[in-house]
Order: sequence, then structure tokens, then C-alpha cells
Amino acid sequence: MLLGSVEAGGTKFVCAVGDENYRVIETVAFKTTTPEETLGQTVAFFKRFKDLKAIGIGSFGPIEVRKSAPEYGCITKTPKKHWAHVNFVEYIKSHINVPIYWTTDVNGSAYGEYILSKQENEKLESIVYFTVGTGVGAGTIIDGKFLGSLGHAEAGHIRVKRHPKDMSFSGICPYHEDCLEGLVSGPTFEARLGKSGREVPFTNPVWGYMAYYIAQAVLDYTLTIRPNQIVFGGGVISETFLDMIRKEFADLLNDYVDVPDLKEYLRMPRAEDNGSATIGDFALATKALENEAVEKL
Amino acid sequence: MLLGSVEAGGTKFVCAVGDENYRVIETVAFKTTTPEETLGQTVAFFKRFKDLKAIGIGSFGPIEVRKSAPEYGCITKTPKKHWAHVNFVEYIKSHINVPIYWTTDVNGSAYGEYILSKQENEKLESIVYFTVGTGVGAGTIIDGKFLGSLGHAEAGHIRVKRHPKDMSFSGICPYHEDCLEGLVSGPTFEARLGKSGREVPFTNPVWGYMAYYIAQAVLDYTLTIRPNQIVFGGGVISETFLDMIRKEFADLLNDYVDVPDLKEYLRMPRAEDNGSATIGDFALATKALENEAVEKL
Repeated sequence: MLLGSVEAGGTKFVCAVGDENYRVIETVAFKTTTPEETLGQTVAFFKRFKDLKAIGIGSFGPIEVRKSAPEYGCITKTPKKHWAHVNFVEYIKSHINVPIYWTTDVNGSAYGEYILSKQENEKLESIVYFTVGTGVGAGTIIDGKFLGSLGHAEAGHIRVKRHPKDMSFSGICPYHEDCLEGLVSGPTFEARLGKSGREVPFTNPVWGYMAYYIAQAVLDYTLTIRPNQIVFGGGVISETFLDMIRKEFADLLNDYVDVPDLKEYLRMPRAEDNGSATIGDFALATKALENEAVEKL
Repeated sequence: MLLGSVEAGGTKFVCAVGDENYRVIETVAFKTTTPEETLGQTVAFFKRFKDLKAIGIGSFGPIEVRKSAPEYGCITKTPKKHWAHVNFVEYIKSHINVPIYWTTDVNGSAYGEYILSKQENEKLESIVYFTVGTGVGAGTIIDGKFLGSLGHAEAGHIRVKRHPKDMSFSGICPYHEDCLEGLVSGPTFEARLGKSGREVPFTNPVWGYMAYYIAQAVLDYTLTIRPNQIVFGGGVISETFLDMIRKEFADLLNDYVDVPDLKEYLRMPRAEDNGSATIGDFALATKALENEAVEKL
């Protein structure tokens, strides 16, 4: 059985076809340009696989994920040129008529990590995937379902307590200035220091401020949702930086509630090479197939 | 059918017996003193009702709610004298052998509001009950289940961005100083102004700071859990103060995601006279009865 995955990012798209064991058979990546061109390339790739049974799409957003909403399947009010109100699902479906699972990029990654944890017999009841890259976001799965009644999470835009030595930086979020994303996303390095994060050594205090802010978001999740595990992804995250986050988190929590060993509780992805999303999208494609089978009964 | 409710607060206990329509038949309240005396009074009250079928208990905490945990049914590491590690459920059960549902006080209230919304045909998929009183806490229900894999929520201890005009107050939480509870719980009025909140007019800027902090907690819930509705309770909350919270919340959200009209989305309880907990505990007692019937199959 062939399954499709679309990891639809604001910078690039990664499309893949895999088998029922979620093994990648072929993959392709291209830049995100106009919807016509980019969705056209997506369709052209999948058209080559005659036996494709379903597609899982994890998209940049905000997107409409509620099936009852008129805009279901659309990217909604993104500031990204050309892409606001594009009906992504309808476009794909009009060219490749297979069941489609539609969710956010972080939800796709969260689902991949959830599936891999099950394969490793970890049986997590709940898992959060937290990404810090060009943007900041999180996807949460509880008992196999995505969290969110009014839509998907937008965890990047919560507020955090400012670090006493970092009061002057005003933040770069166009909507909220110093929300979490405005303080810790990849582009903040350029705004703070005039260079990319890769050029900034971990001894620079900015990494410490960022660890403090991200640790507060992790604390929020820990105290409100009480998930079994939080997995980190995105270009800003590394083992070294995650260790700084763990330390700040331990200080903030101050043993108030019990959590597992922090090396296990706050962890790097199980999937190598950022592969969580592709595995998750394949698994969600299977889910779309099952859902359609149930609807036809 | 007779059902029991125990609203076990750190200051007082309210016990009630009601019928299958969650109507209160008799109620009693007494001070929380030692476990022997207070749990003794609780048992004595319920012993008078021979046909009692089940009891729902919503307790102050932290408590152990995971059935698989050795300390299930206990209050855990509370600073409250005499009460740490008391096995509440075992004590009640050893005297009154009926099914018991054991959860936190805020979860009990959340469940009451969830039940009332169903009775009003609102069909909320998810609801949060947020209390600001002697302490600060929240309970969340999603698809009829309490949120929390590692235990119950402790939402009072998240961190918030400090108001620029309120940087000098250090907060009163013994564990985290200026966490949310350390900044907005009832006793902060005494710490800030040397008098009770009832004596402080809403024109005092302290109310504004508190509204700003609580609005951030509401923003956290809105952006991470995306619940259908957030209901407010606790001694510090009033319609006037909730209006201040709504205004701060709208400013913080800046229309980033869609939420229902704020009068509906952030609302006072449906139950009168703080009755949400009793109704919730009755409904949870029914659930305990059903669970036991299933387990006996």
C-alpha cells in the first residue's frame, strides 16, 4: 500500500511516498513559491504513483482544521503572500482523489513521535511536539487525538516573564512584539545580534535568556496539560541548548510536581533527520483511509 | 438514588447528599481541622443516609489521582499541617463502602459546569474551570475526561510577564515567589496593601495588574488547549473584575486566533452560589457507580 506525505513549510515543501510500514520509497523537496506552482509540483509528484491510497498533509498556518468550518482545508490568514485563504485540500483532492488527512506541520511531527513511541512500546498517553525554528509552535496528542476544540494550537504566542537582564529587547512578533515567538524564534538572533544563530556561541547570554523563556513554555505545558513527554524540534534546538532548557525548567518547577527524569521528559526526536513529520503524515494518511471506510459504512 | 458530594477545601468542607437529578437534599459545612476530626464529621454525615449509592470527592491538593499510583486517593505533599500523605479515599471507603470518584476541587467544579452546559444543550467538547481565591487553579475537561496524564493540573504556578508598573512586588508563593498564584491569589491583597481585597476599590491599579496576569493565563489556555469555554470561580472573581480580565485578554490576543464572543467565552459559572462543585461531585459519583458496574462485568 502506498501512502503520501506533504510537509508543507513556509520556506519549502517536502513530499514523500512510503509503504504501510512508513518506510520512505521516494521523496522530493522544492521551494514554496506561489500556490499554483507549489501545489502543482505536489500534485505532479504524487500523480506518478498510481496506487497511492491516501495522503497526510502537515501544513504551515494558521489553517482551518475543523471539519464543520466553511474554510476547512484552507490556509487562513497567513501574512505569507499569495497563500491566505488558499484551499489546499480541495486543490489536491481535485487532482488526486484519495482520502486526505489535514493538520498542522507540528501536529504531523507530534503524530510521528507518538507512533514511534508506540512502536518502541512506550505507550505514551500524551505527547507534545514543541518546535523552535523560523516560528515557534506545538502540537499535542492525547489518547491518539489532537488537542484543540476551537482549532489548532498557536503556542508560539503565549507571554512569558522577561529575564531581568533582557528587558531592553522589544521582540519581533508583528502581532505581539515580545510573545514567546517574538523572543526566541530563529530570526531573533539577527534582530538581537545582527547575525545568524549558527554564528553565536552558547556562551553568549542570549542563549541563556532564550532557554529561560522556552523553559517557561514547557512549564506551562507541564502544569496545565501534564503530558507524558515533550519532544523538541526545529532549527534552533540542539542537545546542548536542550540541556540549558532542562536546567532552567528544573529551577522554575522547583520540584512542585513530579515529572520523569528530564533527559526522558524533555527529549530530542526519535526520528532521525527531522523525519517525525513524514512518519506522522504517513500514519495520518492511514487514519484518513480508515475514517473514510467508517463513513462509508 | 442518593449520591454524596464532598467539597474538601483547605479552610472548610461542604458535604451534600442529592438525588439522581443532582438536586441537593441536605448539606452540611464544617471547618477543616485535623484529618481525624474532619473526615470523622464527613463519615458521620453520610452514615445517616442508608441508601447512599456513591460519593464524588473534589479535594484541595496536591493529591494523587492516578489509579495506578501507590498513593492513589491520598493528599500528597501539602504544606497544610496534619494533611500530608493522608489517605482520604481509603478512610472514607473503610467506613462507607460505596464507589468513590476522587479528583481535585477544581476538577469537580469543571465537571459541574460541563454537566450544566450539556443540560442547556450547549454540547461543549471542552471546558476549563479557572479559580482565583485563596489559591489559583484550573481543571480542564475534554470529551468528558479530565486533562492530565502525569497527574492533575497545577495551573496556579505558571509564570507570567510582569506588568511594567508592578515590578517591585516580589510575590507570595513559598515555592516560586511571583508565579501566577504568588501574584493574584486572595492573600496577595494583604501582602500588597495590608488589607483584604473586599476593601480595595476597583479603581486601585492592583486590580489592573491582576487582570493582566490572569488574562495571560487565559491566553495560555486559549493558545495551547483551544477550549470551547473558560468558566471563572473563586472569591476574587466578580463580574466587574471579569470584565477587566476580558479587556486585557482581548489586548493580549490581538485577534490572533478566533474565539467566541468574550462574554460567552470567559464567563461566570452557570451554577448559582458556587454550586458547580456539588453538581460536579454528584455527577462524578454516578460515574464511579458506572465504572464499578463495568469493572464487575
